[in-house]
Amino acid sequence: MSGDLLVVGSVAIDAVETPFGREDEALGGSALYFTAAASLFAPVRLVAVVGEDFPTERVAFLAERGADLSGLVRAEGRTFRWKGRYGFDLNEAHTLETHLNVFEGFSPELAPAHRACPYVFLANIDPDLQQRVLDQVEDPRFVALDTMNFWIEGKRRSLLDAIARVDMVVLNEAEARMLAEEPNLVRAAQKILSWGPNGVVVKRGEYGAMYFADGHVFAAPAFPLEEVFDPTGAGDTFAGGMMGYLASTGNLEPDNIRRAIVFGSAMASFNVEDFSFRRLERLTYDEVASRYRQFKTLTEFEAEVG
Amino acid sequence: MSGDLLVVGSVAIDAVETPFGREDEALGGSALYFTAAASLFAPVRLVAVVGEDFPTERVAFLAERGADLSGLVRAEGRTFRWKGRYGFDLNEAHTLETHLNVFEGFSPELAPAHRACPYVFLANIDPDLQQRVLDQVEDPRFVALDTMNFWIEGKRRSLLDAIARVDMVVLNEAEARMLAEEPNLVRAAQKILSWGPNGVVVKRGEYGAMYFADGHVFAAPAFPLEEVFDPTGAGDTFAGGMMGYLASTGNLEPDNIRRAIVFGSAMASFNVEDFSFRRLERLTYDEVASRYRQFKTLTEFEAEVG
Repeated sequence: MSGDLLVVGSVAIDAVETPFGREDEALGGSALYFTAAASLFAPVRLVAVVGEDFPTERVAFLAERGADLSGLVRAEGRTFRWKGRYGFDLNEAHTLETHLNVFEGFSPELAPAHRACPYVFLANIDPDLQQRVLDQVEDPRFVALDTMNFWIEGKRRSLLDAIARVDMVVLNEAEARMLAEEPNLVRAAQKILSWGPNGVVVKRGEYGAMYFADGHVFAAPAFPLEEVFDPTGAGDTFAGGMMGYLASTGNLEPDNIRRAIVFGSAMASFNVEDFSFRRLERLTYDEVASRYRQFKTLTEFEAEVG
Repeated sequence: MSGDLLVVGSVAIDAVETPFGREDEALGGSALYFTAAASLFAPVRLVAVVGEDFPTERVAFLAERGADLSGLVRAEGRTFRWKGRYGFDLNEAHTLETHLNVFEGFSPELAPAHRACPYVFLANIDPDLQQRVLDQVEDPRFVALDTMNFWIEGKRRSLLDAIARVDMVVLNEAEARMLAEEPNLVRAAQKILSWGPNGVVVKRGEYGAMYFADGHVFAAPAFPLEEVFDPTGAGDTFAGGMMGYLASTGNLEPDNIRRAIVFGSAMASFNVEDFSFRRLERLTYDEVASRYRQFKTLTEFEAEVG
């Protein structure tokens, strides 16, 4: 059963520097990247907060794709701002500045249309907030959660409570190891599964993604690109493509989760091809479907031993 | 056309320490790992040098599998010895000691049966030696070469000459970037291809392997393991499985190279399950074929966009 997809997370203004250029006053934030990706697949409803300095006209493309931005609340003060730099190892962001600004007082209140969403993505925010959102959603069919080292270290108890309430955990490889306190990735994923979720998706940057569920493992590579300009938001774009596909198909079987992960990987590969939202903004579903098929070509080999 | 497979490289005595244990006086060396893997697939002929301290009886299992050890020459002095340590990040070996010993004077002279081999693997040795071996091989059908940062930095000119003479280059990800002087892996592989080889295989440790050829890219994951005890020799075991499969099938088409890479990945995944050659020594072809099929399960997803 397909349905609307709720995302709650951050909307930010980023300043990003990579070896290939820089961009100040770039749109950013986990929930915004997620929305841009998911809106190619399914009706998305975004809940987040911005400040008085946020250029609302620049997210008009999301509304044109059918995203519901009524939950994008404007508060007094400045928008959440992140400044970061990447070296030639584009897998690792070096945070130079973080100003939470209006995000510090963020306490999402869901409108009826938000509460009724069957698909929910709790982007990387305080696990207390993630739980407060879950408390308000009426009858979710599938809930996924992302997190980061900051919450793993600082709010472990609350994070574990949140994880016990969701269907899927989505996180980076290093975070999975840190969260499970286990250097072996397979065992780390199994430990996280033992806390309640049915699935764990481990994002590995340029190495792709892995999916773990009971008795089930899937490995997808990242799409090999000759040019990577800005990896900011790749993980949230991945999650948006994956969740958008799941919400649009309404099929939560392992085989369809595999497809969803490949769609997420395809979306992420487009995102890194240009700064901020430049590539996602002009991306079409046909381009994504075409890259999905390229993933098949990239990975296939004959089953017979020969 | 299938045929015999020649490998020239090092045979060593290793002292290895990992978080899970240690082993002194362990068998090691690139050519020995390669031979152990390839001998499950094809007739292998090993050319290497050992010292008076080498326990020849411990490689009897290779002869039992049909490997030709007549080129394993004993010289006066001690065997090449390597001492290394791995931390929890098993992707990176920390070399504690290297003693070349008899390996320093290694200058392979090939017997007629060696010279006639159609398949050749030049394991990670001085590129001058790799070329000297190539000079002696009569009419090779397929030659692959491995290398490492030491030669990339110290013997670049000779290494580029050797690369121009082979069909395939096999190397680690960081080495590919260093060799091509190009941080982007896709462009690094293309640059190496432009120097002459038809294919480049990039080994990525726990992230698997990629294969690049003209207009062709293939990505294979590593097999997810709950227990990794000792990654020593994984790269050479990979190469042995891959080349052994190619030599046994005689099919050098891209689709078969994909299969060969999966067989190499399967072999490598067994090797790391125990110290030194303990797992490879008792490994059977049926176990490898079974893991090959598990790789299919690990990576497959439906082609239709859904």
